[in-house]
Order: sequence, then C-alpha cells, then structure tokens
Amino acid sequence: MMTLNDTKTSDPKVRGLMQGFPPATDKTVRMADGSSWSFPNTRWSFSHQRELVPNANVRRGTGAACPLPENLRDDLDGVTLATMDGDNLTWRQSLDANYTDGILVLHRGTIVYEKYFGELEPHIPHLAMSVTKSFTGLLAAMLAHEGLLDPHAPVAQYLPELKATAYGDASVRQVMDMTTGVRYSELYTDPNAEIWAYTAASGATPRPPNYTGPETIFDFLCQLKKEGAHGQTFAYKTCNTEVLSWIIQRLTATPLAQLLSQRIWQRLGAQEDGYFAVDRIGTAMAGGGLNVTLRDLARFGEMMRCDGKFNGLQIVPEAVVGDIRRGADREHFAKAGYKTVAGWSYRNQWWITHNEFGAYSARGIHGQAIWIAPKAELVIARFASHPTAGNADGPLDHVSLPAYQALTKHLLR
Amino acid sequence: MMTLNDTKTSDPKVRGLMQGFPPATDKTVRMADGSSWSFPNTRWSFSHQRELVPNANVRRGTGAACPLPENLRDDLDGVTLATMDGDNLTWRQSLDANYTDGILVLHRGTIVYEKYFGELEPHIPHLAMSVTKSFTGLLAAMLAHEGLLDPHAPVAQYLPELKATAYGDASVRQVMDMTTGVRYSELYTDPNAEIWAYTAASGATPRPPNYTGPETIFDFLCQLKKEGAHGQTFAYKTCNTEVLSWIIQRLTATPLAQLLSQRIWQRLGAQEDGYFAVDRIGTAMAGGGLNVTLRDLARFGEMMRCDGKFNGLQIVPEAVVGDIRRGADREHFAKAGYKTVAGWSYRNQWWITHNEFGAYSARGIHGQAIWIAPKAELVIARFASHPTAGNADGPLDHVSLPAYQALTKHLLR
Repeated sequence: MMTLNDTKTSDPKVRGLMQGFPPATDKTVRMADGSSWSFPNTRWSFSHQRELVPNANVRRGTGAACPLPENLRDDLDGVTLATMDGDNLTWRQSLDANYTDGILVLHRGTIVYEKYFGELEPHIPHLAMSVTKSFTGLLAAMLAHEGLLDPHAPVAQYLPELKATAYGDASVRQVMDMTTGVRYSELYTDPNAEIWAYTAASGATPRPPNYTGPETIFDFLCQLKKEGAHGQTFAYKTCNTEVLSWIIQRLTATPLAQLLSQRIWQRLGAQEDGYFAVDRIGTAMAGGGLNVTLRDLARFGEMMRCDGKFNGLQIVPEAVVGDIRRGADREHFAKAGYKTVAGWSYRNQWWITHNEFGAYSARGIHGQAIWIAPKAELVIARFASHPTAGNADGPLDHVSLPAYQALTKHLLR
Repeated sequence: MMTLNDTKTSDPKVRGLMQGFPPATDKTVRMADGSSWSFPNTRWSFSHQRELVPNANVRRGTGAACPLPENLRDDLDGVTLATMDGDNLTWRQSLDANYTDGILVLHRGTIVYEKYFGELEPHIPHLAMSVTKSFTGLLAAMLAHEGLLDPHAPVAQYLPELKATAYGDASVRQVMDMTTGVRYSELYTDPNAEIWAYTAASGATPRPPNYTGPETIFDFLCQLKKEGAHGQTFAYKTCNTEVLSWIIQRLTATPLAQLLSQRIWQRLGAQEDGYFAVDRIGTAMAGGGLNVTLRDLARFGEMMRCDGKFNGLQIVPEAVVGDIRRGADREHFAKAGYKTVAGWSYRNQWWITHNEFGAYSARGIHGQAIWIAPKAELVIARFASHPTAGNADGPLDHVSLPAYQALTKHLLR
C-alpha cells in the first residue's frame, strides 16, 4: 500500500522536476522518450500536457468568469472513513492516498473545500483523461435531444467509412452507452492491448521507430474488428467515444474543441480556456484528451447538478441531464463484472451510481473525477495522478468511493 | 509579380483546406511531412500553430481586456502608393500583394482600420515569427534597466555552458543588438543554412529519420562556432535571440512564456492568451515562436508608442522604450548592406528606421510586423503569410514600407 511519504516524494516540486534551464537530465520530462507517461513524472506532465503535445483551444470567450462563492470549512479534513481495503483514514489522508493534484468540493453551490498539491494551481489546466468522455457524451446527447442525431440509427449511416468495421452493424445508442462488441482491450498492463495502438495513432504516446500503424485516430477506428455481440454487455472501450466524436463532428461540421467551446465553455463562465490534445491532423482526443482547470471542472459539474442551468443560462437542456441521471440498463452493466461499481450503469458516457444521493460521475483512470450527488446538493471535482491506472476495481475506488460517501454524509449532518 | 488572384486562390477557405473529418488527403496540413511549412498551406498553419506543435501558454490573467476605441475610416483603402518595384497600388491592393492575413491600424489610440483575410479571425493567435524577437529583447532591456542584467557583462558570466562557443567572448549587448560574429546562416533558400538546424533542434520543422542533431535549443546553441569579430557589424541571426532568452530565463528562474505573461501580458489588458511554440523539453522559441491575436499585437504596439504606458499602467519603463527608439550604431547596421532598410539600426531586437516619424518596427520574415511611428501617433499591427521569406530587401519590404509611409502621410493630412 502507498504511504503518505510516497505522495510527498512524488511531488514534482520536491523532486525538482523540470527546474532550471535546462533541467538536469534525470529531472527532464519528455514526450519522445516516454518519460512523460511514467509515474511519478505524471504528477508534472498531467499539468503540462500542452507543452508536450499539439492541442486545440477550447475558448472561454470574452465574458466574465462566473463567480463561485466560497465558505471554506475546516471540519472536512478530519472526516473519517473506512477504505474498501479496511484502512481507517481521514478525508485529508485519503487525498494523499490517491495522489490528488487538486480537489474542490461545492456544497449547495458554495466552495466548502479546495486544495492544490504538487504542480497544480488554480489557473493551470490538468489532463482530465476519461472525464473527457462525459463531455463528448453530453454533446452527443444534446444533439440527439435537438433531433440532429438519431441514437437508433446505425453508425454507418453517419460514417460510411466504418461499414466494414466492428461498427458496421452497431447503433449510435450502443456507442453512446458502450455496449458494442468490438475487439479492443483497455488492459493497461498488457503491452499488446489496443489502447496502446490508439494512443500511438493519436500521438498521445511516442511511436516506435519505423512505425507503420494507423496515422490518425480516424485511421485507427477504420481498423477495428467485431468481437461479440452489440447491445448485450457494458464494455468500457475508448474507441466508442472516438466514434461518437467522429459522428458529431461530421454532423455539425465543427471540430470537437470548437463545439465544446460554443455549446458549453463560452456559456459556462469558465475562468480559463481549456484544450484538447490532438492527433497529427488536428483531431481532438475525444476519449481522453481534454485539459481544464479544477475550478472550471467544478463549474461544469455544478451546471450538471443544477439540471443544466448555470451562469444564468440553461446551458444543457434539463431533459438531457435527466436522461443521464436516470442511467441505463443495470443488467448490461453488471455483466462487466466490476466489484467497486457494482449496481451502477453507464449512460451517454457517464457513470451512474443509482445510490441514495442519485450520484453520477465522470471518471478518469488516474483519479480524475467529477462526482455529482444531486440529492446531497454536492459536487466534487478532482484531479489526480495515481500511479495505478484503472477504470474500476483499483486502489483509487477503494479509497475514493468511501471518501465521497463519508464526506457526503458529513455535509448532510 | 504576384497577382490579386494568387491571394484569393491561396486562401485556405477558398482551397477547402482542413475541412471535413478527415479532410481530403491533398487538403490536409501536417507537421510531420513538412506540409505545414509550404506555401500556400502556411496561410492556414500560421493561424493554427498550436494544433501542430507543443506550446506554452502566455496567460492574460483574469482582468478585463483593455478596450480599443474604434472609428473605422473608409478612405484608407484608396490611399495610393508607388512600390519599390515601380508599381502603383492602392493601400487595399497592397494588402493582397503582401498576402496579409490581418491588419489593424491605430491612429491616436483609435482603431481606424481592421481587416482579416483567409483563416485569421480576431480571437485567433497568429504566428508572429521574428516579431517574437522584439518581445524577448524588450524583456531583456527591462531586466537591464532594473540592474538584474548587465549588458556589458560577457555572455559566459550568465551561461558558462557557452564558454567554448562563439559566445565565449561576446558581450550581452552584442547579443542584444545582433553584432556577434557567429557562424550561422539565415539564408532560407540554402538547405544547409544553420537556420534549418535550429528549426530541427527546436522542433519547429520535422526531423529527418535517424536524426542525430541537437535535441534541444540549448544543445544547438552549445555547438555554435565563432566566425568574424564581435561588435563590428549588424548580422541578423536568430541564435542571438535564443542566447538572450536563455540568459534572462536563467537570471529570473522563470520560463519565457511565464515571464512575458507576468511582465506584460497580464498587465496589458490582452484579450486572449498568447503562446510560444516550445522545443522537446518545453523551451520557448524566443526567436520566432510567439503566437498572439492581431488586436493584442496592436495593444502591445500602442503601449510601446505611449512610452510604455497602457491600460492605466506603466508596463515598460519609459527609459527602456526611449532607449529602443533612439536606436543603435547605424554604421554597424550599414555594413549588413541591406537596401530596403538602408539608414536604419537595430537595438534590443527592434528595427529602428530613424525616419521623420521616429518609426521603429518588429519584423517577421513572412510579413508579420508591428510598425510604431510615435511622431505620427500611429501603430500598425500586421500578420501575413508571404510566400517569400526574407528579413529585408524582399518583395515584402518593396510593398510594405512605401505602403506604411503613404498611410502615415495620409493620416497626418
């Protein structure tokens, strides 16, 4: 198990990472040699993605930032919880246990807790990884609500390029809810998993010399083969999000970064521009490439908690938020066999807990998260750089899920 | 000579460049295959650098943008001028002749002219190329004014790494005014010119397979050999700016992008964040990598016209601006043998005309420019993508310099 000491020694500032001109060789983080993806360097690189890869701006526009009222509470640090591993921790200790880079808690729309660790600062965008999927899924759901996108239509109706692939007979709905049967492993410990072919194609990880794989995200998607049936089982596969993004970009004739800016970021009163990592032809990584500040992530979460209303605007239709909150087929989800998220479902690229607080979540594999508990009037935004990547069932959930639950109950006392 | 038709057919929107998901193969602009640097693709890529290369944010902060009053004049388009090639053009025609992407004229602090062409829009940062040098030189001059940097000191006092290079016996002042003797050719038509080694090292141009050259900008600078004497002749060499940037980054322990943000961008009331292209260890390209919006470039120019005052603040000390305006040794400059800029000098990385209006300029090789004429209370900010790269004596100057002069005289009538 990790110790508090790990968290401190992995702090980029403590390590002197990327300090000086030039930094010492063993303190330099690069994309080309893979060092930007190895822990503990990730505690630096997750706050500096734009200096490592090309990217597309998600512009906030010129309006004023929507203020977030603040009433910090010093009683939260001491909230106690029991992890799924049987350890007793305080809330404050749980943040270290999860290699938290930043965390912000909104209760009834007011900041009651906000902390930054390591390299992250309030104005710096952090890599959101799979939290990105929930943004992409939300945009798709908005287009479906407007009638522009038909979830029941076959994917190939929008993307004839995918006719001969795994997606040839899949529906948009199956893509949105990740119930497609496609040969795509997201097992991060397996070097042959398709996730690595995806990251090489997208340019997120360095390509080996004499690389002959797909050149772009679109090229990668055109190679995917069917495996199993569609519409039967929840199977968490990033390629689905990329297919969904391709569909909505083609439908709107608008790059994803611009679509997010127009539809949400410019209306949200975001404090800073965000950005997407892009592949070699400028395509946003819709499944994991978004970078935003912690406060803007919290604003977005608060907007979702408030049924799409924020900054004096109805940014997302109430019905779209309601559909996500209600979730999807829990039997499909159960077949995935997850333990930490048993009883949940997955709708439009969001994770729905179906718990007593109606909580639903956007989740990234290194601990990035939005946790929205409408019945507790609670939103948690968190960035982290946990050394163990995992969608569920990992050390992250073992600590975070009990921590969120304990904090929620404490705030409702 | 180019025709008006060239300008229209090179327009990325007319060509359908980078439209669709994915764009057609022959309409795709990439970094990896060099297509982002070939005209007419540059008319797209100069407005999309961040989607092509890693970069560092020049943050504007959270304050309000400083408004620019507007009183557009429709009489300027018809102003006539004779180019150095003997052609008679109107002001409007001169913009096409120079492949202008955007131009903004401030007279007495008010926008009297503002036009965007091709891919550029008011909120999009455009590659400033060597206009960047004037930002770097200004920051260095500010540090010298504060006594932190001694222009008379040898470079090696700040950068011992350069002891055995061309810079071993050069002074900071010689670097600031580009009178060092260093083997470095900026002849863009020569594939063996050191400028291409610099762009490969910095990551601005693709590296050949099995590249064994310098890995970073700093590595590149450590290889430069002396050629000729220091302090005798103006010789326009981008490596000097990179040395200057290295010095000020080491002195301030602050990356250049952050320094520009703290010292200028956050105080200027800039409307948008800017950014620097960076090399593979995150070092800003101080000699050519800055990207800002046209309006923010104009704000910066107006601040310089107003002796460093803008947005209610003394952003740059008056003495620093005055020193630049007075220029440097014109005999050193004359030895470079330029025709279009005969009689000028070069001070702190700015071009000083010594003309009747006290004009001085920041200049980029594809037509990027700030033109400040204090005695005419005039500032011109311009972005362009001229197919012919050139520091001086090229088709750009043949049209632009007479055009600026004609416009100035017209506005003073």
